[in-house]
Amino acid sequence: MELPFVCPLDWRYGSEEMRRLFTLDAMVRRLVEVEKAIYLGLVEAGIAPRSCLEVVEKCFSVDPREVYELEKRIGHDVASLTYILGERCGECGNYVHLGATSYDVVDTAWALAIRDALAIIKERLRRVVKLLEDAARRYIDLVMVGRTHGQHALPITLGFKFANYVYELSRSYERLCCAEERVAKGKVSGAVGTMAGWMGRGLAVEAAVSRALGLPMHEISTQVAPRDGFAELVAALAILGSSLDRLALEVRELSRPEIHEVVEVHGGVGSSTMPHKMNPVIAERVSGLAKVLRGLVITALENVPLMHERDLTNSSSERILIPHALLVADQMLIDCERMLRSLRIDEDAIDRNLKLSRGWNMVECIMVKLVEKGVPRHEAHRHLAKLARELSGERSALEALSSDPLVSQKLSPEEIRWCLEPRNYLGNYRELVERALSYAERALSRC
Amino acid sequence: MELPFVCPLDWRYGSEEMRRLFTLDAMVRRLVEVEKAIYLGLVEAGIAPRSCLEVVEKCFSVDPREVYELEKRIGHDVASLTYILGERCGECGNYVHLGATSYDVVDTAWALAIRDALAIIKERLRRVVKLLEDAARRYIDLVMVGRTHGQHALPITLGFKFANYVYELSRSYERLCCAEERVAKGKVSGAVGTMAGWMGRGLAVEAAVSRALGLPMHEISTQVAPRDGFAELVAALAILGSSLDRLALEVRELSRPEIHEVVEVHGGVGSSTMPHKMNPVIAERVSGLAKVLRGLVITALENVPLMHERDLTNSSSERILIPHALLVADQMLIDCERMLRSLRIDEDAIDRNLKLSRGWNMVECIMVKLVEKGVPRHEAHRHLAKLARELSGERSALEALSSDPLVSQKLSPEEIRWCLEPRNYLGNYRELVERALSYAERALSRC
Amino acid sequence: MELPFVCPLDWRYGSEEMRRLFTLDAMVRRLVEVEKAIYLGLVEAGIAPRSCLEVVEKCFSVDPREVYELEKRIGHDVASLTYILGERCGECGNYVHLGATSYDVVDTAWALAIRDALAIIKERLRRVVKLLEDAARRYIDLVMVGRTHGQHALPITLGFKFANYVYELSRSYERLCCAEERVAKGKVSGAVGTMAGWMGRGLAVEAAVSRALGLPMHEISTQVAPRDGFAELVAALAILGSSLDRLALEVRELSRPEIHEVVEVHGGVGSSTMPHKMNPVIAERVSGLAKVLRGLVITALENVPLMHERDLTNSSSERILIPHALLVADQMLIDCERMLRSLRIDEDAIDRNLKLSRGWNMVECIMVKLVEKGVPRHEAHRHLAKLARELSGERSALEALSSDPLVSQKLSPEEIRWCLEPRNYLGNYRELVERALSYAERALSRC
Amino acid sequence: MELPFVCPLDWRYGSEEMRRLFTLDAMVRRLVEVEKAIYLGLVEAGIAPRSCLEVVEKCFSVDPREVYELEKRIGHDVASLTYILGERCGECGNYVHLGATSYDVVDTAWALAIRDALAIIKERLRRVVKLLEDAARRYIDLVMVGRTHGQHALPITLGFKFANYVYELSRSYERLCCAEERVAKGKVSGAVGTMAGWMGRGLAVEAAVSRALGLPMHEISTQVAPRDGFAELVAALAILGSSLDRLALEVRELSRPEIHEVVEVHGGVGSSTMPHKMNPVIAERVSGLAKVLRGLVITALENVPLMHERDLTNSSSERILIPHALLVADQMLIDCERMLRSLRIDEDAIDRNLKLSRGWNMVECIMVKLVEKGVPRHEAHRHLAKLARELSGERSALEALSSDPLVSQKLSPEEIRWCLEPRNYLGNYRELVERALSYAERALSRC
Repeated sequence: MELPFVCPLDWRYGSEEMRRLFTLDAMVRRLVEVEKAIYLGLVEAGIAPRSCLEVVEKCFSVDPREVYELEKRIGHDVASLTYILGERCGECGNYVHLGATSYDVVDTAWALAIRDALAIIKERLRRVVKLLEDAARRYIDLVMVGRTHGQHALPITLGFKFANYVYELSRSYERLCCAEERVAKGKVSGAVGTMAGWMGRGLAVEAAVSRALGLPMHEISTQVAPRDGFAELVAALAILGSSLDRLALEVRELSRPEIHEVVEVHGGVGSSTMPHKMNPVIAERVSGLAKVLRGLVITALENVPLMHERDLTNSSSERILIPHALLVADQMLIDCERMLRSLRIDEDAIDRNLKLSRGWNMVECIMVKLVEKGVPRHEAHRHLAKLARELSGERSALEALSSDPLVSQKLSPEEIRWCLEPRNYLGNYRELVERALSYAERALSRC
Repeated sequence: MELPFVCPLDWRYGSEEMRRLFTLDAMVRRLVEVEKAIYLGLVEAGIAPRSCLEVVEKCFSVDPREVYELEKRIGHDVASLTYILGERCGECGNYVHLGATSYDVVDTAWALAIRDALAIIKERLRRVVKLLEDAARRYIDLVMVGRTHGQHALPITLGFKFANYVYELSRSYERLCCAEERVAKGKVSGAVGTMAGWMGRGLAVEAAVSRALGLPMHEISTQVAPRDGFAELVAALAILGSSLDRLALEVRELSRPEIHEVVEVHGGVGSSTMPHKMNPVIAERVSGLAKVLRGLVITALENVPLMHERDLTNSSSERILIPHALLVADQMLIDCERMLRSLRIDEDAIDRNLKLSRGWNMVECIMVKLVEKGVPRHEAHRHLAKLARELSGERSALEALSSDPLVSQKLSPEEIRWCLEPRNYLGNYRELVERALSYAERALSRC
Repeated sequence: MELPFVCPLDWRYGSEEMRRLFTLDAMVRRLVEVEKAIYLGLVEAGIAPRSCLEVVEKCFSVDPREVYELEKRIGHDVASLTYILGERCGECGNYVHLGATSYDVVDTAWALAIRDALAIIKERLRRVVKLLEDAARRYIDLVMVGRTHGQHALPITLGFKFANYVYELSRSYERLCCAEERVAKGKVSGAVGTMAGWMGRGLAVEAAVSRALGLPMHEISTQVAPRDGFAELVAALAILGSSLDRLALEVRELSRPEIHEVVEVHGGVGSSTMPHKMNPVIAERVSGLAKVLRGLVITALENVPLMHERDLTNSSSERILIPHALLVADQMLIDCERMLRSLRIDEDAIDRNLKLSRGWNMVECIMVKLVEKGVPRHEAHRHLAKLARELSGERSALEALSSDPLVSQKLSPEEIRWCLEPRNYLGNYRELVERALSYAERALSRC
Repeated sequence: MELPFVCPLDWRYGSEEMRRLFTLDAMVRRLVEVEKAIYLGLVEAGIAPRSCLEVVEKCFSVDPREVYELEKRIGHDVASLTYILGERCGECGNYVHLGATSYDVVDTAWALAIRDALAIIKERLRRVVKLLEDAARRYIDLVMVGRTHGQHALPITLGFKFANYVYELSRSYERLCCAEERVAKGKVSGAVGTMAGWMGRGLAVEAAVSRALGLPMHEISTQVAPRDGFAELVAALAILGSSLDRLALEVRELSRPEIHEVVEVHGGVGSSTMPHKMNPVIAERVSGLAKVLRGLVITALENVPLMHERDLTNSSSERILIPHALLVADQMLIDCERMLRSLRIDEDAIDRNLKLSRGWNMVECIMVKLVEKGVPRHEAHRHLAKLARELSGERSALEALSSDPLVSQKLSPEEIRWCLEPRNYLGNYRELVERALSYAERALSRC
């Protein structure tokens, strides 16, 4: 571990695997890879001599340090790289970067990096969805109280709750596929996008680069690839991050000691001064990092309206934006996986809480039954709301309903009791869970 | 025109057509439409009597004023509506909203509104793209200087410039299709998403609603539809808005008197005190409104992490967010169409500016030629950069290059002159424009 | 109530008082007021005849409808207004708007509107702080559990909790004062800020306007007042909104049935289908609207970098931004006041929850005592953390600690028992509450 | 230079001076400094033995590597630090961190870091303002065209233009002072803010820490300092950044070859493929980084509404947010200083552009004169606007006005000619520049 770091993404957040895509070394290596593909394109197009291919294979190797040292002097990273490569390759060096512009290299390298980073992100997301699917199946029948406004609503099952996340995160997976289609595209078209430097043979150069890197190419471009794709990517990551934030918030809330239904359990020091505490710190980190992702969307959006055939204002901001967005999302997925693995389900607490409202949260069922018996819905609603307001503090729903003239006249004690049993009032939860799971299956095989 | 308005979207920005989707009247009408579809669902599922269908057809009519008056008393808009409908429909009123939750109605109504609004947005976007295509074709061979960093770069053609916008906006069109798939979906599943109130017949209710409204349904939900879809929609609109902002910025910059290549021309007062001015006010409004759209993305993203089976914090913010995002985008597209129609192309200015750099912007071509003659690319670059630095202030490129020992030794006067003619150095612009146009054709037929 | 509205700020959110500042009528009235002040300035500076003052007093009245009708034809609102006023005032009309630019009028009118709006906001904020102060005093000794990470931490008192909000919101008050200083400033300097149209007598015109409106003026300007002030205002409102969001979140969480310590209680329908529910809907609305405010900050920030002596892109966005930010903040403060008035404190629940951890949350006190007895802090921490991990599930802290060899050797049973009594471990809460209250007193008298 | 970096703030952006405040080493050093101050507080309050002061002076030294190694095992950085310090200090180690909570240390360390960082930021901002003041004085009389909407408006002087930035940036300086007051404050109050662990002697501990670090303390707190202060800081930096963005945009636009009035000139490679280009890359970097700052405001705002006595979601986001916001602002100020030093003023171009509109931009002066001669302002405006529309394409204003019946009847040829001379129509520019400069003087001595 190195200590000159100022950014937690250098070491604290994000996987090594993801980080390796964005170190200075990796950035330079990728630029070299693209320069090499362009060189190959020049050869294929008959601009550079075929004999140079072999030479280039050897001389295209550079210590990133050299590049950055030279950049310090001349103020331009890609130009530095091409000088170094050019000088190193003898006569074949003459053709290095010929007809290309820096952003042919930079944008195509970003596309490669994003493609590889998305492979990691998608794999992790699949794992998270898989864990949620397992949980959805495992707890499909574990009845718990549903909560809206933080208040007790009708019952659901824990599996049903998880299945909702399966669905939502599958949608995020689709969205990443959509974004990838538009952003993981190379751009090899010269200084203003016309391919002028290749004297009419630009399409051949481009086709060779595309084949060499296995990367589709933008149909047209200015000096740079259109920035809407980057904005879409970051927005997709921020939406994913916000859905993970929802999952994390779920855990944080359910982990409260007064609720304690689904608890994040792990080792580690809880508090530097309160030794007893078991804080849901993984979930909290997810929620914390989601805020970073949301902010980055603004930066990405502002990069879309560049001037004319481009201005440079996307450059500095993207050097920060792209690695940060992907590393933060990476950490959040890692954390969600750990969090899901660490969850402990407290069935007693779930059961206790389910009974906390003493049946009052089941009153919708009574209302439905009353309507079946001919009571207008809005009257039933008003009547039961009044009852709840007046009596829910003192009596259980069963007591109150049983002694209510209207209700007891329309419904038998068995009907009332049936209604107040949560297990009877779960609707089509099983089919819905199934629908969510099969949607996920389709979604996750989409790209 | 009414004057109590405080919001410019009430009258100043957005089309009447779009506004009509979001007036209070329209909002209530749509809620009624959904209540009616749910009622139909209850009938289809055998919960409400089929005979009521006819009754409901008549009694389901409500003056929005009533709803809002009642809401003032009881503090809940959908509950007010259901009371009114319930009371109005006699015995059939008993089944109004039965088993449903407010957000079955609200979210399904949002889905309808968004579907209709997107139809408008997409139609307008198609028109804008069409105008850009026409311009791309018309000016495909009109040579102009390309600009990067605001500085003169290699030549392009005006048609090539427009084609880049065709491509970029087609991508936005695709993105709207993607978003629509995930957001224009109904949600009819009761208070916590289990469909409990329909006693096992929820899927039948839902299917009938889906058929009646012609709207696909979410696979699973909590009390509300997942909010990631709304975030995706607003992000897609903000990206579209940012691309339109780029187009508007292009016009604003090219309209400057010193440049004056593509000028927004229209009647109207230019300035309240400087009578001579012809300001690109439409383009400026587009850029101004883009800032509003970008901000709204944050609100939309923050609505994703709701608590448990939902909290209410999305409600107030979406009442603002959804109509504002769509009306602002609507106005921006209207403005872009007007702007494109108002553009005047000043070919003299284009030609004058193309010559402004006295050939120095064509030097890349010389570099390529030198490489062809065996000069290493990086040496050629360094040499020409030095030449440009030293002589571009005083002499034309032709003079400087012709009298430069290295260049004149390697290249004949004809070669030099050939290179300095912009028309010779446009690369594959025609094929690229074609690619952009055919991409657009595919994209615009996607949804 | 009118129904063509599309924006909830027209009727649903924001007070009538605030809304009256931003209706179309009010906007025009304010423009007229500024035109009149400028006219007075022209008279004072000897540019317009003094005799016209009386005339203008009468003829400067206009039906906003006229202005907007004319604007539809000529596309410029201030120009329309000046034409109408000019034509209406006979010979004196000659001097209307003379030498001024539209934004002399618009920006000065914004300054007046903001000043008046801030007076409302500050008054409401004072009332909210006052309510919190009362609550801080009233419940200064009501012991409750403190919560960090949602988990039980050391005890606090409810008054101490409220006092934290007193402090935080007082800081927001100061921030509004800071912002007001820089944003509630007029701008009367002509088309590019030089006051050229007043032929050297600009400072006299400006001074008269300043006196007439009771508004300080910017020291220098371009065509418009610097936009950093607007950004500061919106940021200050968004920070205030985020602190109110924190307060609302506090209430929403403490209102949960499992916690139920501080409950938002009010009439109104809880749910359209679950009649028993008592949702903290006011608090939820506060949290919802906070998201809108946060998004608006982006729009305000993007308005700062206008081109040269200004471009128009701030105009459309500010027509939305300024009224929306102030009306949303207005509603949030109204809601917070209502919410605070509606709170019911459930002392039983507070007491029950305080005991929920069976003393384990008091263990820090034991640690401190052990250190007093010579145990190294980190050893004590480690020991107690282990104890907590192993035993807190089964036994109370008292049992566990009493039978722990290390603890019972160092501490007497009385010491252990003393430590586990929350009331003994509240530190300097009373002095801290006092400090917060007196800070608030100073802050609230700051402007 | 190390190559494992993924974040450009590690090496590319930000000064070494600023970076040194935020390296891992510095972070740990500062935590130790605060732990030491707390220790001193414990001694002053009579909790730890005075004899330990000397011991602690020596044993309070730790290699950050150790801390991070231990953190990897126990998952908590401050706890790791306190263990190490505790074990290292023998018996005196018993009192390390006693009664304190992690965020007593972290938040107080943030306050120290922010104070030091703001000292750098403010010093740099003073330098930028100073350079702008010099330019304002130097070019106070250099007449140039003012531009609104990118179009030619009335004349200004270059000094007047710079003075506007002096004013605007002075306001940012004030804003930093305001923010510093509320954010550069320590927090030493224990786990829930009550100072319980110090058994009634908390105020003495706190006072000693405050004295030792020279840092004022928050009046009250939860487990953490209120987060509104951080949001205010980041908002103030983002507003500053947006004003610098405006300055940078000014330079980028004025550097265009068609305008070329104020040009960013420096060495370095202009383009990797177009050797002639002189791009305003410093200004572009400023505009690019401003986008990052604006996005960070969202993250900072979202950190305000923490739950109860705090949740952990601010922790991860602030680890990124705080150093990034300050380093980005640092780089922007460094760049602005460099940019201002590199500017070359092209007086010929300024003069040429001033004449570009052939007098039409001076027509307001004619309008004012006509009004002096009794023509109603709105008629004069309409007449001149018509003239401009019809004739500005073909003739100079002088020709058109001289041969216009209305104008030539009212104004003598000398009057017309006088009006068309830009130097005559600069209003009170000198006094306004003076006002801006003396405002700056007051503002910059404010903190």
